[in-house]
Amino acid sequence: MSEFDTSNSTLTILSRDAKALEHWINAHESHSVASSLPIVQCTDNPNAIDKQRVSVLLSDPDLAVQIIPQCKNLQWCQSTWAGNAPLLALEKNDYQLTGIKGIFGKLMREYVFAHLLYFSRNIPTFQANQAQSPPVWCGSTRSPLIGKTLGVLGAGDIAKSLIPVAQSFDMKLVGLTRSGAQQAGYERIYSVDELERFASRCDAVVNLMPDTPGTRGILNRVFFRALPENAILINAGRGSAIVESALLEALDCGRLKAAILDVFDIEPLPSNHTFWHHPNIMITAHTAAESSPEDVASVFCTNAKRFLNNEPLMYQFDFAKGY
Amino acid sequence: MSEFDTSNSTLTILSRDAKALEHWINAHESHSVASSLPIVQCTDNPNAIDKQRVSVLLSDPDLAVQIIPQCKNLQWCQSTWAGNAPLLALEKNDYQLTGIKGIFGKLMREYVFAHLLYFSRNIPTFQANQAQSPPVWCGSTRSPLIGKTLGVLGAGDIAKSLIPVAQSFDMKLVGLTRSGAQQAGYERIYSVDELERFASRCDAVVNLMPDTPGTRGILNRVFFRALPENAILINAGRGSAIVESALLEALDCGRLKAAILDVFDIEPLPSNHTFWHHPNIMITAHTAAESSPEDVASVFCTNAKRFLNNEPLMYQFDFAKGY
Repeated sequence: MSEFDTSNSTLTILSRDAKALEHWINAHESHSVASSLPIVQCTDNPNAIDKQRVSVLLSDPDLAVQIIPQCKNLQWCQSTWAGNAPLLALEKNDYQLTGIKGIFGKLMREYVFAHLLYFSRNIPTFQANQAQSPPVWCGSTRSPLIGKTLGVLGAGDIAKSLIPVAQSFDMKLVGLTRSGAQQAGYERIYSVDELERFASRCDAVVNLMPDTPGTRGILNRVFFRALPENAILINAGRGSAIVESALLEALDCGRLKAAILDVFDIEPLPSNHTFWHHPNIMITAHTAAESSPEDVASVFCTNAKRFLNNEPLMYQFDFAKGY
Repeated sequence: MSEFDTSNSTLTILSRDAKALEHWINAHESHSVASSLPIVQCTDNPNAIDKQRVSVLLSDPDLAVQIIPQCKNLQWCQSTWAGNAPLLALEKNDYQLTGIKGIFGKLMREYVFAHLLYFSRNIPTFQANQAQSPPVWCGSTRSPLIGKTLGVLGAGDIAKSLIPVAQSFDMKLVGLTRSGAQQAGYERIYSVDELERFASRCDAVVNLMPDTPGTRGILNRVFFRALPENAILINAGRGSAIVESALLEALDCGRLKAAILDVFDIEPLPSNHTFWHHPNIMITAHTAAESSPEDVASVFCTNAKRFLNNEPLMYQFDFAKGY
């Protein structure tokens, strides 16, 4: 990395969780961060920021995008999110951009298996039986996870956390990545060129891919038609991966049993959107792997120590590659 | 085991799944069972049974209990259930009684974690948000499983299947057994004398204990009051373990966040029972580890080969101990 003069660097926090982030940074075991990078601005309002004073920025990317083009002295922006499409789309790229990684997997594995098991144990039917008058005592069709195959689109860092859980339920795992390079824990990793062969293997699919030109619309009609019947789709990557008309067709013809959607092209999802009202769609409001301010502060402090020592930062984005 | 003359033994099937069991026994890889133990009676009706002809009986215990006192020539009864309280309560005990084990764990682990994750990810709140008009885009309080402690009452064979899953979510496990003997996979096993200390450790509790005099009413007011606040209870053992008034009190004062109940003193649970209508009780109609006829036939055939060779049977019950 290029070296910066960090002796006069200060910290600007621009985030909906600004106060909580300030609290956890000051409470961090490494006091050198708070003393060497004094917090000079701390707000959730982009208009309140003095852009000349911004050298190190800890920020929600959808707020940061409103000020970064004017931040002439920006050295490093630590994003509070995993994905950073808004910032990667800007022309300005003369600073270091880092994201949050490492803490999402532990949340994501609970999200994914909560929803897979919700359907495998047919909880909705038991709930409906109980709500009837008189209530209905009745078994229901189960489709146990054991022996089934879980497919992961975007078999990267976050997906690794799914492997031991899937194994503990005796599920098989297949993955899809750009390169198709094989990885431990997967029966097979397919490349993007093998999308249909990948889809045909999947009793359930989790999309964890970031928003890049190559992933937009990848969950299209061809993909859905290649799935086995009654598959489950979980989208916790980015909304842009899904072709909406193809998803609705797959649900309506029974190819998909259910879709659990966490991310959307427009967030919050507009209240008149079809997805809200579809009986086989569950909406979880971009919370699948929502990191806590404490988690974000911890990643920031670890990176800040590296920054102050002129060491390479963790979780850097490459403006040229777009991820 | 005492030796039987098996040369004239025949098989009687008395079960709600009689036809399916017959199918899977005839389809079993070991043809010697079907040929050496010919099926002479196969019905779901106890009154249709010629009791004199019963030597080997494959039966649902609640049906078997209606004929076994009159079966003078009974050598062995293979129950289709894990628990056998109805048969253990009879005076007649001059035959071998075996249950089903080994296949429940793989179903039980999905049942237990489906419901733990349902609450850890707060699925009910997202469902309620989506059902509102207009729908509500909003996060919700999560209580991740990571770092939490799962307590297992009856840390035996079935409970073993929970260990790798709990570990894959970074949960801690504590257990409770009659003896309190330590076991691998548990931070600690408590004895029944240490019920309150056990309860105080548990963020969630699963009861898997069979119905014995020692386990009746063990989930009483003392137990519930020792739990941390907002605990989750899953009862997949026997209904008799629960003191109903104590459970309702624990739910209503917030000690328990929710109870997931699979088993009851009277089944089907009468439709006017309070449990059906409690907002924080989920009822699953004795399906937590419901074995398929194929699974039961497989256990029966394995045991039948042992029976024909005068080898000790697996999964025997001890009439003196009552389990």
